[in-house]
Amino acid sequence: MDTIKLADYLFARLRQLGVNSVFGVPGDYNLRLLDFVEPAKLSWVGNCNELNAAYSADGYARINGLSALVTTFGVGELSALNGIAGAYAERSPVIHIVGTPPRLAQSTRALMHHTFADGEYRRFAAMSTHITAAQTEITDAASAPDKIDWILQQALIHSRPVYLEIPDDMPDALVSAANLTKTVAVPTVPSTGKEPQIMSQILERMYTAKRPLILVDGESVALGVVDQLDTLIKNTGWPTWSTVYSKGLVNEQLPNVYGVYEAAFGDKPAKAYFESADLILTFGPHYSDTNSYFFTTIPTPAAAITFKDSSIQIGTDPICRDVSGKDLLLQLLQKLDSTRIPKATDAPPKVVTTLDGIKSSDPIAQDNFFRLVNPIFQEGDIILTETGTASHGGRNFLLPPKARVFGAVTWLSIGFMLPATLGAALAKREQKTPGNVTLIIGDGSLQMTAQEISTMIRQKLNILIIIINNDGYTIERVIHGRNQSYNDVAFWRHTQALSYFGADEDHVAKSTFTARTCGELQDALQKVQGGTGVRLVEAHMAREDVQGALLYLLNKQLAQEKKEE
Amino acid sequence: MDTIKLADYLFARLRQLGVNSVFGVPGDYNLRLLDFVEPAKLSWVGNCNELNAAYSADGYARINGLSALVTTFGVGELSALNGIAGAYAERSPVIHIVGTPPRLAQSTRALMHHTFADGEYRRFAAMSTHITAAQTEITDAASAPDKIDWILQQALIHSRPVYLEIPDDMPDALVSAANLTKTVAVPTVPSTGKEPQIMSQILERMYTAKRPLILVDGESVALGVVDQLDTLIKNTGWPTWSTVYSKGLVNEQLPNVYGVYEAAFGDKPAKAYFESADLILTFGPHYSDTNSYFFTTIPTPAAAITFKDSSIQIGTDPICRDVSGKDLLLQLLQKLDSTRIPKATDAPPKVVTTLDGIKSSDPIAQDNFFRLVNPIFQEGDIILTETGTASHGGRNFLLPPKARVFGAVTWLSIGFMLPATLGAALAKREQKTPGNVTLIIGDGSLQMTAQEISTMIRQKLNILIIIINNDGYTIERVIHGRNQSYNDVAFWRHTQALSYFGADEDHVAKSTFTARTCGELQDALQKVQGGTGVRLVEAHMAREDVQGALLYLLNKQLAQEKKEE
Repeated sequence: MDTIKLADYLFARLRQLGVNSVFGVPGDYNLRLLDFVEPAKLSWVGNCNELNAAYSADGYARINGLSALVTTFGVGELSALNGIAGAYAERSPVIHIVGTPPRLAQSTRALMHHTFADGEYRRFAAMSTHITAAQTEITDAASAPDKIDWILQQALIHSRPVYLEIPDDMPDALVSAANLTKTVAVPTVPSTGKEPQIMSQILERMYTAKRPLILVDGESVALGVVDQLDTLIKNTGWPTWSTVYSKGLVNEQLPNVYGVYEAAFGDKPAKAYFESADLILTFGPHYSDTNSYFFTTIPTPAAAITFKDSSIQIGTDPICRDVSGKDLLLQLLQKLDSTRIPKATDAPPKVVTTLDGIKSSDPIAQDNFFRLVNPIFQEGDIILTETGTASHGGRNFLLPPKARVFGAVTWLSIGFMLPATLGAALAKREQKTPGNVTLIIGDGSLQMTAQEISTMIRQKLNILIIIINNDGYTIERVIHGRNQSYNDVAFWRHTQALSYFGADEDHVAKSTFTARTCGELQDALQKVQGGTGVRLVEAHMAREDVQGALLYLLNKQLAQEKKEE
Repeated sequence: MDTIKLADYLFARLRQLGVNSVFGVPGDYNLRLLDFVEPAKLSWVGNCNELNAAYSADGYARINGLSALVTTFGVGELSALNGIAGAYAERSPVIHIVGTPPRLAQSTRALMHHTFADGEYRRFAAMSTHITAAQTEITDAASAPDKIDWILQQALIHSRPVYLEIPDDMPDALVSAANLTKTVAVPTVPSTGKEPQIMSQILERMYTAKRPLILVDGESVALGVVDQLDTLIKNTGWPTWSTVYSKGLVNEQLPNVYGVYEAAFGDKPAKAYFESADLILTFGPHYSDTNSYFFTTIPTPAAAITFKDSSIQIGTDPICRDVSGKDLLLQLLQKLDSTRIPKATDAPPKVVTTLDGIKSSDPIAQDNFFRLVNPIFQEGDIILTETGTASHGGRNFLLPPKARVFGAVTWLSIGFMLPATLGAALAKREQKTPGNVTLIIGDGSLQMTAQEISTMIRQKLNILIIIINNDGYTIERVIHGRNQSYNDVAFWRHTQALSYFGADEDHVAKSTFTARTCGELQDALQKVQGGTGVRLVEAHMAREDVQGALLYLLNKQLAQEKKEE
């Protein structure tokens, strides 16, 4: 039997699946495992803490398709849980590898550190069952390769995080290398025989539609149909909207692509068209309150045909399960007779934002900030907009082709976006595709995970960080507690960040800017745009300056305050 | 019926139990609850993130006896879990209050943000069951007061964290105020009738002991016997040792108190006495590997009489359960005939460390650093030594009376100690007792939670931070991976911390020092000692400079490397 060391096996598998970097923090029970990372030609990214590492791994997976995170038993893994949960909520496949105490310690219930000193070793694994798609504990050499393959496959099938325990005495255990000749792949969904009937129903609906549209939601990534959707959108020419979650998955430069559908919070003609549509082809739906503007952007069931991972629903018919939404779309593209596709004759006009009315001396405000930032984006950019005003404003960017935007979808854990930027930037560098990486983040969120700027610097990544400094948790102020001190944060000198976190002094001087007016912002952006290394622009804005849905919340609160007077 | 709003009830209860500050981070589902914090005359400590908040609450509880932490559902609470787990492991009673979505959202399984958008609301509460002593979910006004009282009582009984869910629509629900006339208290353990027999056995053993000693371990705090132990130690005059966990609980200025017992890693005469003892009165034992020098400091069962919360064991007799270790000690102190207490005639000599042999020009090293720092400590000080070389060195401080030391006991989550310092310093300020607060922390640990320095500054706390800058995770290097790059950390400019984190520029200039030699360290300590605000001294040391048990580990690894050559 050809054998290989367990850790070599695991890391070879990760490499086969396109993982090139591993995130995490060393700890007593994972050091022997970490010995195998660099020899496997994987790059080790030592994060400042485990939550940041999990966030980074999530960001990496969203660009790369898969990622790996290594933590240590107890103290390490528990710090990462919120990041893993976010990856679950938003379907990011992260392999969470936990280095656990040696099998002898576990089987003898030894009172080791990183436990509760009560001999119980299973409680932390039990916690992770609630936030991962699958879990496995490596216990012996014989079953290890299959267990590893299975857990990796689960991550790919569900596009969600999984949990893998490796005892500290096992990284160099010899296991069979036999599996390695075949790669781990997602199994195909077997045909149910129902597909031809489904297909003719869909085609019939499409050929007879009067007011059709396409709604691309974010689970289309997990569905694996992003390229196919591009074809569908081009072939039909139908009006197409995104959600917060899917922003950037479709090419906004196409004339029929409108950006994020915002119902009552957006363009009125768009709303009128959407609400009177008789066909809404919906892909990868994800109907959380925040991804659906309080459930107002969800298509009328009668009009919708909804494609999911392993089901489809046509109108109000019963859900048809165990069919692959992806396979159906592939068939649809083959079968579609382009001569029979109706035109969407009364499609709404496309709204284009401009820099009109912005004066250099104007103070920076939500209303001008995003318009001023938009022109710096180029084809292939990754733009990460943290939960809060950054994400809300980022919804209205008009994106160049192949640009991706990450915003506040469902999990909304502030602090996520900065380490996620690190992960995404690393994945992008490995892919060697053109485009820049920009993070837009509020001052409150920044404080959660700021230390990861040092890892960006250490990894020599090219990242532009724009800090919206509006003196606290503005997103919370508009929800509740407009004047409450609990929505304040500590005062930081943001312009000192790069220096504190270890950038070269020369680089700091030419890469840090602070701006209060639109002119200052434009100057700063010009200087940092497309540059190298980590660059930082601090943009000052007013505490309660918000737009759109956030303005609606603020006004509701102001009205309530007036009533209470 | 006298009524009170739910949140007012909860916070009134916390105030009755001596909680004066509440830690946490605002989030969508706790804002309405936070409205009640300051009106209840509780001080709100907004931390930079939830893990830091949990660590802070733990530190506060260790000084104050109880603490409260408020997080938001999902994203907030999960970030705090590692801190809550640490509080469980080391018996710190933290009330973890989670603001959950409104009851309507939960009962209708609405796809709200901070969930997995699948209608399931119970998974996060399920996770906390593994790391808290008790859990309760407030669901209705009628049962709320009793549920709150019960959960608070559980925290006090077990001296461990508990989990309390308050839906976002309930803070202003009216509940009965009737319970408030009685305070929440720990119930007494009913007598089993076995106590007189136990007591005579103990007294007999004490009166006939030839080589008696007292071992005070850290769960003595939860046992509630710290003052009684002081009496016992004085009345017997018997040699007394601490553990890492209990360091500072007994007055090290007494001639019969020796500090931490380190078995083979410490003083040889101490080991000889300990191992030949015929009576070891043991209080609040906690025998993790790290708190017992790899299980070598655990008393011989035949010699030990072990006092726990609700059991006692005399020698190798069966454990006697359902008796209160505290009540037994109280009775013992009353019954003990001081004329019959044997002297410990062959007690070992007490080792006193001095500054002998240290020259100003010497580079700072583990061997001189702790000796140079020791003289700054005063009566009532709190000294927090982070896991790593800081905690190992801190074990050998000779403490002034009433000084407390916190070190690496069992949970050993690096990053804990900095926010814990914030919490401990706040509790100390509220107690208005004399003494200073000093944190000693390595550069690797510091990076985990550094942003909380800004909260220390914002709270105007008086804290001295001494950073051991030895270029990475030295503790991990000595365990495994001496030359591995995964034990490196990013380069930071530590002397810029106070400025970046918002301290007044004037203050920064006179409160930040960096030292490479013993003379520089002494100068810096002199300047910052007993000062106000947050002060910072960076002490450079060599990467592999370690002592004691850590040196043993390093040498083991060096020997292994030699073998492999």
